[in-house]
Amino acid sequence: MTVPPRLAVRLAYLGGTFAGWQRQRGQRTVQGELEQALGRLYGTAVQAAGAGRTDAGVHASGQVVHFDPPRAIPPEGVRAALNSMLVSDVRVLAAWTVPPGFDARRSARSKRYRYRLAWGSPLDPWEGLRTWVLPTSPERSLVGAALALVVGKHDFASFALSGHAGTGRRGTVRIVTSARLAIRGRHASIVIEGEGFLRGMVRRIVGALVEVGRGAQPIDWFTGLLDDPSTRPPAPTAPAHGLTLERVCY
Amino acid sequence: MTVPPRLAVRLAYLGGTFAGWQRQRGQRTVQGELEQALGRLYGTAVQAAGAGRTDAGVHASGQVVHFDPPRAIPPEGVRAALNSMLVSDVRVLAAWTVPPGFDARRSARSKRYRYRLAWGSPLDPWEGLRTWVLPTSPERSLVGAALALVVGKHDFASFALSGHAGTGRRGTVRIVTSARLAIRGRHASIVIEGEGFLRGMVRRIVGALVEVGRGAQPIDWFTGLLDDPSTRPPAPTAPAHGLTLERVCY
Repeated sequence: MTVPPRLAVRLAYLGGTFAGWQRQRGQRTVQGELEQALGRLYGTAVQAAGAGRTDAGVHASGQVVHFDPPRAIPPEGVRAALNSMLVSDVRVLAAWTVPPGFDARRSARSKRYRYRLAWGSPLDPWEGLRTWVLPTSPERSLVGAALALVVGKHDFASFALSGHAGTGRRGTVRIVTSARLAIRGRHASIVIEGEGFLRGMVRRIVGALVEVGRGAQPIDWFTGLLDDPSTRPPAPTAPAHGLTLERVCY
Repeated sequence: MTVPPRLAVRLAYLGGTFAGWQRQRGQRTVQGELEQALGRLYGTAVQAAGAGRTDAGVHASGQVVHFDPPRAIPPEGVRAALNSMLVSDVRVLAAWTVPPGFDARRSARSKRYRYRLAWGSPLDPWEGLRTWVLPTSPERSLVGAALALVVGKHDFASFALSGHAGTGRRGTVRIVTSARLAIRGRHASIVIEGEGFLRGMVRRIVGALVEVGRGAQPIDWFTGLLDDPSTRPPAPTAPAHGLTLERVCY
């Protein structure tokens, strides 16, 4: 009897209707819903491992998940079957076979997050579902200048959610490979790509950028958070509903 | 002391985060939230009357509401103040002065509703928030033919939510002035405009149109619901989250 090959799926989901990615007893989570659907599809319990453990409220348009199917069903059939069993707030965009050693989290070369900002008085009630709406426009040049500083290898301890001591040999050191700011009218996106992220890191970076952009803190303060993380108070945290896990690269 | 003129506001809101329009003890409703904000703005209780009592789950992009302000604040100031006090799932699009006799519901000449449909397997989890997703495409010509039948003066008793006996001298007779179907790719909008609507009427019309469009019922059945309402069983009801109150005309 041959073992069916490991499968990967790419997921999109809404943050607001889930208590985050990770399975939790008595909570509706993305991992929980997906594993329930996999259990119905294969008739036996199947564990699913995600690339990023998105927090409650954080959306995904490109989460990647792997699992070992108990029997062989063609990937396209798995995709269609899962979508028919899942509620429409989580969608399986694609399914494909991966090599035995593939691990959605450990094999990832990089991840890309997008944080959506707007300012002024929004007139569209849909906007608030995935955008952090600020009362006034942040100063573009200040946000851009501070954002450029995060690119590279840094100790991001100031940008970790409280209690995150870092994991493994890397501690709280991570490499950000790209960071850009796109502004269109009264909307902005902050797109950050990196080899790995601490829990809450993007939201804490955005929170600090907004402090700089609204003139509440000078750029030096932001530099200090990066260069001298241990002696600084934690940066404020941008709300979860502005953040989307957009892409995982392998 | 002069009495400040009556004001009207135009609102947009999300259906999914409210238990409908109408004030209800212990429930978060649009009327409840708006009256709470008006109370904070004017420092005293203010009652707000809406043009349409949208049910739980039904969205609005152009609900109209009137109220009598206890003191004179310029409309644009009222709009800005209310938006700053309300959560972003309800927005005040405009505010203006109206004549003393103006009544948001009774003065309305017509209302326009839009129902959003899609079919097939959606890949965007945002789509499910305001669209009724059907497993397969309904037959366009059948939906269009049945939809054309609702235009005019009819007894819409078959399309009223159970228990709606009609109100006043009109009973369950209403006039639909226009009904159109717009299809784009795998998305459709059914736009119905009329002088008045029974509770649940648009959702029941759409539910019946889908029965015809998927071939579950012949056009004759739909004609029967219109022509011979008392002897027919009620039509199925399309889910609330596909419906938007789009415009009220005066």
